[in-house]
Amino acid sequence: MTHQNLQYNTGTGSLENWLITETVFDPDLLGKCEAIFSLGNGYMGQRAATEERYAFETRNLFVSGTFNKFADNEVTELPNAPDVLWLDLKLDGQRFSLERGKILHYERTLNIKEATLTRRLTWEAPNGQKFDLAFYRFISLDDLHVIGQRIEVTPLDSDLTLSILSGIDGQVTNSGAQHFLEGEKRFFDNQYMRMVQTTHESNIDFVFHTAHTFSCAGKTFEPNRHICMDRRRIFLDYEGINIKKGNTLVIEKISNLFTSRDRHWIDKPYDVEQLKSNGLAHVKEIHSLGFKGLLENHKKAWQEKVWKKVPITITSTNPMDQLSIRFAQFHLTGMTPAHDNRMNIGAKGLSGEGYKGHCFWDTEIFILPYYMYTNPKVARSLLEYRYLSLPGAHKKAKENGYQGAMFPWESAWLADGEVTPVWGAADVVTGKASKIWSGFIQYHITADIAYATWQYYQITGDEDFMLQYGYELILDTARFWVSRLEWNQEKEEYHINDVIGPDEYKEHVNNNAFTNYASHWNIKKAMEVYDFLKEHQKELFEKLNLKLGLEDTYRAWMDKVDKIYLPQPREDLVIPQDDTYLTLKTIDLTKYKQQETVGGIHRDYNTEQISQIQVSKQADIMVLFYLLEDLFDQDVKRANWEYYEPKTLHASSLSLSTHCVLASDMGDKELAYQLFLRIHGIDMGPNMKTSDHGLHAASLGGLWQSVVNGFGGVRMHNGKLRISPQLPGAWSRLTFEISWYGDILEVDATDEEVILTKKTNVNDSIKLEVYGEEVELVEQLKVIKT
Amino acid sequence: MTHQNLQYNTGTGSLENWLITETVFDPDLLGKCEAIFSLGNGYMGQRAATEERYAFETRNLFVSGTFNKFADNEVTELPNAPDVLWLDLKLDGQRFSLERGKILHYERTLNIKEATLTRRLTWEAPNGQKFDLAFYRFISLDDLHVIGQRIEVTPLDSDLTLSILSGIDGQVTNSGAQHFLEGEKRFFDNQYMRMVQTTHESNIDFVFHTAHTFSCAGKTFEPNRHICMDRRRIFLDYEGINIKKGNTLVIEKISNLFTSRDRHWIDKPYDVEQLKSNGLAHVKEIHSLGFKGLLENHKKAWQEKVWKKVPITITSTNPMDQLSIRFAQFHLTGMTPAHDNRMNIGAKGLSGEGYKGHCFWDTEIFILPYYMYTNPKVARSLLEYRYLSLPGAHKKAKENGYQGAMFPWESAWLADGEVTPVWGAADVVTGKASKIWSGFIQYHITADIAYATWQYYQITGDEDFMLQYGYELILDTARFWVSRLEWNQEKEEYHINDVIGPDEYKEHVNNNAFTNYASHWNIKKAMEVYDFLKEHQKELFEKLNLKLGLEDTYRAWMDKVDKIYLPQPREDLVIPQDDTYLTLKTIDLTKYKQQETVGGIHRDYNTEQISQIQVSKQADIMVLFYLLEDLFDQDVKRANWEYYEPKTLHASSLSLSTHCVLASDMGDKELAYQLFLRIHGIDMGPNMKTSDHGLHAASLGGLWQSVVNGFGGVRMHNGKLRISPQLPGAWSRLTFEISWYGDILEVDATDEEVILTKKTNVNDSIKLEVYGEEVELVEQLKVIKT
Repeated sequence: MTHQNLQYNTGTGSLENWLITETVFDPDLLGKCEAIFSLGNGYMGQRAATEERYAFETRNLFVSGTFNKFADNEVTELPNAPDVLWLDLKLDGQRFSLERGKILHYERTLNIKEATLTRRLTWEAPNGQKFDLAFYRFISLDDLHVIGQRIEVTPLDSDLTLSILSGIDGQVTNSGAQHFLEGEKRFFDNQYMRMVQTTHESNIDFVFHTAHTFSCAGKTFEPNRHICMDRRRIFLDYEGINIKKGNTLVIEKISNLFTSRDRHWIDKPYDVEQLKSNGLAHVKEIHSLGFKGLLENHKKAWQEKVWKKVPITITSTNPMDQLSIRFAQFHLTGMTPAHDNRMNIGAKGLSGEGYKGHCFWDTEIFILPYYMYTNPKVARSLLEYRYLSLPGAHKKAKENGYQGAMFPWESAWLADGEVTPVWGAADVVTGKASKIWSGFIQYHITADIAYATWQYYQITGDEDFMLQYGYELILDTARFWVSRLEWNQEKEEYHINDVIGPDEYKEHVNNNAFTNYASHWNIKKAMEVYDFLKEHQKELFEKLNLKLGLEDTYRAWMDKVDKIYLPQPREDLVIPQDDTYLTLKTIDLTKYKQQETVGGIHRDYNTEQISQIQVSKQADIMVLFYLLEDLFDQDVKRANWEYYEPKTLHASSLSLSTHCVLASDMGDKELAYQLFLRIHGIDMGPNMKTSDHGLHAASLGGLWQSVVNGFGGVRMHNGKLRISPQLPGAWSRLTFEISWYGDILEVDATDEEVILTKKTNVNDSIKLEVYGEEVELVEQLKVIKT
Repeated sequence: MTHQNLQYNTGTGSLENWLITETVFDPDLLGKCEAIFSLGNGYMGQRAATEERYAFETRNLFVSGTFNKFADNEVTELPNAPDVLWLDLKLDGQRFSLERGKILHYERTLNIKEATLTRRLTWEAPNGQKFDLAFYRFISLDDLHVIGQRIEVTPLDSDLTLSILSGIDGQVTNSGAQHFLEGEKRFFDNQYMRMVQTTHESNIDFVFHTAHTFSCAGKTFEPNRHICMDRRRIFLDYEGINIKKGNTLVIEKISNLFTSRDRHWIDKPYDVEQLKSNGLAHVKEIHSLGFKGLLENHKKAWQEKVWKKVPITITSTNPMDQLSIRFAQFHLTGMTPAHDNRMNIGAKGLSGEGYKGHCFWDTEIFILPYYMYTNPKVARSLLEYRYLSLPGAHKKAKENGYQGAMFPWESAWLADGEVTPVWGAADVVTGKASKIWSGFIQYHITADIAYATWQYYQITGDEDFMLQYGYELILDTARFWVSRLEWNQEKEEYHINDVIGPDEYKEHVNNNAFTNYASHWNIKKAMEVYDFLKEHQKELFEKLNLKLGLEDTYRAWMDKVDKIYLPQPREDLVIPQDDTYLTLKTIDLTKYKQQETVGGIHRDYNTEQISQIQVSKQADIMVLFYLLEDLFDQDVKRANWEYYEPKTLHASSLSLSTHCVLASDMGDKELAYQLFLRIHGIDMGPNMKTSDHGLHAASLGGLWQSVVNGFGGVRMHNGKLRISPQLPGAWSRLTFEISWYGDILEVDATDEEVILTKKTNVNDSIKLEVYGEEVELVEQLKVIKT
């Protein structure tokens, strides 16, 4: 499944390391580029299915936050919205399909800089006629509701009569689940088409409009057309379009999409008629601007909002390093609903049906650092989402007999609470579907959210956020933890039994080290917050005391926190991942370590059997070392690495970046670089089956963490900024910018020195630690590595 | 769109005129053969999608009577059940698809006699390797729950390593509408797979089981496999199957399907666990019988239940004539739920999503004659369906402010009542969806059902049916009609205004001739029934009087029936189809008469505009002449034919057969034959776009009517059998059998004479009219045409 279908070096000049090009069309491997070439603007994301259709494609358009539940025995998910990309060409009666005729030239290029997807090809139809075809598209970052397409058709060796079917297709589903009720279908002026659909459980109206423009040799014209409606489809049937040999027909298809969940309606009474008429007026406006005008605005927005704002330069012997960090930023931007604090980032972004658009701890632990250090407003919005989700977290706590905020393992719309599916893949032993326990017992996410809240505060100094949301989040999560602790009479300790830690191969374990430490941290931090508020924010303290019963809870924290069992290193310095891991049998894992596709072990063992083997899906103790680095010394970290890494299959895309950053922390920058190269491959690499269900959002965040927190050595450490760049041998220079307490700092590092420049003047100076040395940055300073 | 992809003469010897062969694979024209090669047994029907998948295919499996409504703003429909045909082959890593590589040989053959579909081909894979592939399948007529498939793979020029994905795929929808909730997915012994799905509104459980057998060179073996579950999918992934060059791998896939709507549960409490365990036990049983054994039973069933029971021989210079009548019988058998009187025949049978599995007057007027004359038990079951649907008819009458039984224009499950969709295709003038008025005002179906009830009785003499169901149907429908009549003070007549008659191009007309005459007939017949029951069936009379308030209604019938306005021939003998038709403008219809695809006029005019033109979709007055032949003399019939036929676009498949039988009636047997040839073409002909949405059930019945009622001249006339064969020039002999009052009569006709043989002895003799002459048939008699 590894093919040389992808090229990463097609960009030159100002586009160097900005392009990824698919050079071979393979109808069996559509999923890869559908995902990695997907386009998005945080409002919506569209998989890169082609205009024409193929049997094994997946056509997806997702709109952030528009969750719907198909049925009571399924969980809510982002519905696959009607497909506006659809455009079928018939060239002298021959349907255009790359499975037929011959492909004389083919290239499809994602331009990361401009956020456009371009396909250029020369096709020999089954009857021998040859055509140049080009397809351009973008999802606007300037106007979040706009989808632009441009198609060019050039007959090369004879005149052409073309017919076209193009419209909006609502027959798409989420792997068979239809989330929409059919609504209005209508044409205006035989030109603008409208489709209205409504999610059947959550009652969200989607309003689509589409318009076409035709031109040839610089002249626009109106081809003959028939208006057509079919079930869940509205389209135009254009017939008899004649193009002279060598001339190019240009078709522009400009579409928009608005929903009743749009933030627009948050402070006014919703009116579907208004939504529809706004949409129609808007499509007329963007149609008149045309593809080119809309594209210019879109490109400008990317330049301003992303590339100028968050520049990262890697000077490497391997140009892929630069490309990959841009790829990560590109897709993080496309999948992050920065416009709306009621929404979060799905584990597959908006690029596939995988994980149903739900967010996980992936956001807090793997993605938020990117935004905290580069775009704190977005980080804040994503944390506000957790605050707004408190009703769901309370519901979950109550359902499980606990107190406080027990955050859902998977989260969708705010008050939904837990939305993790209960049944998964086939169990090789029983022949039944396996039960997924994460939604019940993967508790640590609650501490992860508290941790990220505190981290955000320490990096940004955003006291306003803390007063409105942050302190309460830390207190309320600690309320959960103290209610979750179990007294072990024999050991006279508090235990947390029957959990899943970060390593999801170990279900129903007792005292997962990560979970216990995280819980302990959360309660300790809540106690600090309590003391601080009582002393310095009396009004807020009273309010929260009333709401959360803080005084009683504080007593429980006091009683219990120091009695939480925190697994310590054994004599060999290995920390037991949980009460039983180190006692389990070991097997030869070579076969599974080598497998290209993850999850291979499930073909030989069921979940219960895997639970009985010393094998890990992903980093577990390592995440603990990363998040609470002070608690363990280098020897312990090294010993655990050596014990656990060989048993870790990295079958989660969350695993490698943690290992990469830790390798940097341990000073092993070449090992870190080897891991970094493997992270590239998770989505961007040549294995054509990696991304069928969508991009790996956390691994994109992890890529940035590896560069900035790992090689760049940037860390918030006990409230202080620390910068210790450690460039791998392949890199001669790394420059990036970070945000710290409202100031923008440029970091320009080589292996010998680092130059820091404070580009703004929010703070007079910033105290920080560079290469272990305390320094004060006023305007610029250079620190030589010792 | 007319292609020479189909051959009708591939059958030789005992298979002469039994085969239809597709000789060219065209991925853009899949719909035609999916429909005409569909297989069914009345319990279920399966469109002939291929094992491998294509972008423009439609995979349909429908189970009679299992209606479900996707949403309140849609109508109930037969849900597209999970696909068990699915089987993907990978030949040395190359996915088998006829869009790729080269097709060196291709033939797909429907064997009508054995009800099997066979595909044989030689495929050159993209890498140049060649393979013989063969695919066989049937849907058992012996055991209605069985689907059998057999696949053969032979590598021709090198050894082969094969991998296979095969299972049950519930991701299919009805054009995007998902009717099923996911249920249990489970493997037994890593071999038998189960999928349970439940319709989400009607709560019908579907239980599928599938099992595979592999053999090569006569030896069965068990290939390596992985069990896989995906959303709405369960399948086995077979890997590494090695086949030596020239050897043939045989795969048998045997599947079954049971539902909670099965008649099995009609008299016992339903138990889903029992349904599942029955299904598993059954699949083990049929799996052990194997494809061959199951196929033998299936072939025997077709021989016994269809071909021996209803033989028809046409000796014609055009062999298509024989083939086409077999084609009609084949598909009528496949689509008729003869096993269950709670079900009826969909207008597209079970072969496509068109008309959603609903039944129309198509059953009573176009299909029932076939069963009345050949298999009265089935005819009775279909009429019992209408009786069981009375609650729906009462509901509709009530909703519309009428009394009695107002039968729905489209009918689905018994108590559903009216299920005609309200919105249809795009209106070329307004740009909105057109409103479909048939469900509101196409009243005549109520009389059509009464007519068929009486006709059934007259042909079968089934008094038991009449006492249980038939009389009540005639009385209750007449109750509706009398409540529907409107008094016209000016003319002192009863009118029926604002209707749609058989000609659906004329909406909202007053006094459609067919409707008024049919209503009049219905009331008159009810009065006869009333008199008869009062005199001879006092007990039943009292019961019905109590139930229906007959005495009051009878007074209303008496008052009104003779004042119903029955349009009379004008001076030129033309009968006005309705009050305004003859006053409308005329346009040149040449363009629309010639169009290959029906409905072309809707691209230029909307429904309202078409209502203002003298143009008809289909036979209207002609149906009146056919059903109530005595009311009009030959001159009137001829004059109306000449007036209306040129204005009739035959845009309904119900149109041609009526014209064909009438042409026979008018003595114009060559015109009749020309029309008969056009009926062939509706589904079977070379136009590859005719049947995309499914077969035309009424036209298949019409084909039989054209042969037996038309050319065979068989008619029930005032309770007496009349036989006046009029063979067209191309035919030298026509033999068939009909059932009359329980006896089987063989009719053996040439253009000169007819030999009648009474093959059974229920009645001592049968009095009938042959060529206008009264005769009495005891054993056999020959009548020479004069």
